[in-house]
Amino acid sequence: MIWNEKIECMERDELEELQLKRLQETVKRAFDKIPYYNKKYTENNVFPEDIETLKDIEKLPFITKDDLRESYPFGLFAVDRKKITEVHSSSGTTGKPVVSGYTPKDLDTWSETIARGLTMMGLGEEDIIQNTHGYGLFTGGFGVHYGSHKIGATIIPISTGQTRRQIEIMKDFGTTCLIFTPSYGIHLGEVAIEEGIDPKELGVKAIGFGAEMWTEEIRQKVEDIFGAKAYNIYGLTELMGPGVGIECEAQNGLHIPEDIYYPEIIDPNTLKNLGPNEKGELVLTNLYREGMPIIRFRTKDITSITYEPCECGRTLARMSRITGRSDDMIKVKGVAIFPSQIETALLKAGDVEPHYLIIVTRPHVLDEIEVKVEASKDLFFDGVKEMVNVKDRIAKSIENETGIRVKVTLVEPKSLPRFEGKAKRVIDERNLH
Amino acid sequence: MIWNEKIECMERDELEELQLKRLQETVKRAFDKIPYYNKKYTENNVFPEDIETLKDIEKLPFITKDDLRESYPFGLFAVDRKKITEVHSSSGTTGKPVVSGYTPKDLDTWSETIARGLTMMGLGEEDIIQNTHGYGLFTGGFGVHYGSHKIGATIIPISTGQTRRQIEIMKDFGTTCLIFTPSYGIHLGEVAIEEGIDPKELGVKAIGFGAEMWTEEIRQKVEDIFGAKAYNIYGLTELMGPGVGIECEAQNGLHIPEDIYYPEIIDPNTLKNLGPNEKGELVLTNLYREGMPIIRFRTKDITSITYEPCECGRTLARMSRITGRSDDMIKVKGVAIFPSQIETALLKAGDVEPHYLIIVTRPHVLDEIEVKVEASKDLFFDGVKEMVNVKDRIAKSIENETGIRVKVTLVEPKSLPRFEGKAKRVIDERNLH
Ligand SMILES: [Zn+2]
Ligand SMILES: [Zn+2]
Repeated sequence: MIWNEKIECMERDELEELQLKRLQETVKRAFDKIPYYNKKYTENNVFPEDIETLKDIEKLPFITKDDLRESYPFGLFAVDRKKITEVHSSSGTTGKPVVSGYTPKDLDTWSETIARGLTMMGLGEEDIIQNTHGYGLFTGGFGVHYGSHKIGATIIPISTGQTRRQIEIMKDFGTTCLIFTPSYGIHLGEVAIEEGIDPKELGVKAIGFGAEMWTEEIRQKVEDIFGAKAYNIYGLTELMGPGVGIECEAQNGLHIPEDIYYPEIIDPNTLKNLGPNEKGELVLTNLYREGMPIIRFRTKDITSITYEPCECGRTLARMSRITGRSDDMIKVKGVAIFPSQIETALLKAGDVEPHYLIIVTRPHVLDEIEVKVEASKDLFFDGVKEMVNVKDRIAKSIENETGIRVKVTLVEPKSLPRFEGKAKRVIDERNLH
Repeated sequence: MIWNEKIECMERDELEELQLKRLQETVKRAFDKIPYYNKKYTENNVFPEDIETLKDIEKLPFITKDDLRESYPFGLFAVDRKKITEVHSSSGTTGKPVVSGYTPKDLDTWSETIARGLTMMGLGEEDIIQNTHGYGLFTGGFGVHYGSHKIGATIIPISTGQTRRQIEIMKDFGTTCLIFTPSYGIHLGEVAIEEGIDPKELGVKAIGFGAEMWTEEIRQKVEDIFGAKAYNIYGLTELMGPGVGIECEAQNGLHIPEDIYYPEIIDPNTLKNLGPNEKGELVLTNLYREGMPIIRFRTKDITSITYEPCECGRTLARMSRITGRSDDMIKVKGVAIFPSQIETALLKAGDVEPHYLIIVTRPHVLDEIEVKVEASKDLFFDGVKEMVNVKDRIAKSIENETGIRVKVTLVEPKSLPRFEGKAKRVIDERNLH
């Protein structure tokens, strides 16, 4: 079933017409109602009437998290604060948090994006959705909550924690859909098994997961544990919340509700727009947001977008799984690579600890990458011959993931630096030469 | 302002007509659609057509928490489970939890009850409500959330915890209403003061508090801390959630939305109905609930109801502050007294620890009560004369609270038994004689 067939299966030219109309309205309203945009656009000498085609969006300056912080708390509201009925916020590890405001119409639009996604996951009014995301300023919990209301499913707003109770409720209520972060889902499955319950017997038919980086291996693990298909849900509090992209049954990219979000992909270094299927940073624009329209927000998330028809029948574009953050991107020999790719390669190769350091140098003309990896304790005592084998295996695995040949160095267990919070994985020494 | 003047200021005869119509519909629907009621009513030889007047409700058997547990999880739904869009649950310290199910219409009815209450508290679309209740299976968070949507205020669904962030957000967002439990509210105020912020300067204009027992002293403390009026919100997950009673600006009893809940007061021993202004156990009936109508639920909460006109202009009945639980009630010389009253009296008297034991005996014809109280360490070393003074003070304080003269015995610090969980405060030896 398709929730909103008219929109989700619209011909592209018709969709682009709708997008252009909404983009023009949004830019005009932002310029007229929000001093921050007015000043920024005036400084950049770009005005609402310059938006004559969709491509003209490229004339507009980007908005970053810093802009949102500067406008904290309510500087980007396009309506009187009285008209805002709900406020969310992303905590942010540094500096002031970022605020997201919603009118009743915005909450309905947000619900609509999730309703489409839950329908893609095969859910309807007969389903019981157990939502283990936290409810609070974070948008994870409320997005699915409102979307579930919209499709008329039964929502269990259990929120995080109380794992044993979660399992009891799954059994007693007959939960057919679980919403979780991959790591909590795996924990939930492990606890069920400890309690002597086979998670596969619980009757779960679909899983929605998000709010964390993941790999196909992690998806596979989650699906194996619960015997159910797991669908990725992507979103950002700044833009509205979860629902910017949700996978359909083809599990081959996340459909973007393009009547609501306008996606672009840019090269994070040159800031130039890239074409379909090219990997780069996702930039998003609210096309249909009353309370707080965000225009050309740099998400820092790395993905690519395809406009090819999907086997599910929907014509809406699909974004690929997020493979990294543009902050972490290293450009080597013209190829963009990410620490997360190295991590995936190491996991696949085995015999090493998930502690590594990527060192980029340019000894002559060409870039070189060295990946230092901690050997597992066992391996370290197995001697040189075994270590050479493992090094080869890792190098091949990395080449498979990234297309680049790197030098692998195995180091003693616990010899690499440990980090509190976000780990520093890359040392780029190229600027020194 | 009054949210729903037509209902909230309705003439009593008109209101009773509406109540009777809704009661008849509810009983008929419960009998026809819910096997549990059908069986129970048939066994008690009472049938929907027996409800010809409001007073006929007394013919119906009570529903207790045990009935709800027996029907766990979905045995009291009056509609196909598919039509239920949200499920809540009260955890309960013993046995299976109790489930509460809602159709979209029920969620709207629930919002309506809270919208009336928030309006009583003087709130409207210009207000910013910071909701520190937890969101989850517990109904505390969602009740105010939905009610805030209804009146068009700005809800900040911050949920529990992160006290420093709560204070920062109060300051930055300009919160005008706080929703908390009294104990968390007092903590929030203390932390603000520690941070060098005077909570009175934060611009809070109303506080909604609930989910805990409280006294006028606690209300006074909360109001002093924030320089704002604090209004009590009462409710039960079984019946819907918060909103069964909310105080108006007169702060003289909680208005019950009687078109939605039908309240009765019974003597918890004889189970006979009591009249207006008589203290007893509150029994509640859902008059307007589609998903899961609860009829004559014994709340175990002790209160009284007045039908006298309120100075605010509303005609809806008012319940008094909950003063205890019927499980804990002791009937002595025809008077109902509660451990909570003894506790209040001890707090007022001072110089003693909040550890006490109430022993009821009937040495001859008349009941006697002895209250054993732990003296404070200091007092215990001050000697006999001081102890006699304190005993007198305590006895007078208890007489003030309960109207009953008791024997007070001071015991050594730490000599009374300690309890994990719910303390056993009463030893009733009267049945032994
Ligand atoms: Zn598809
Ligand atoms: Zn009143």
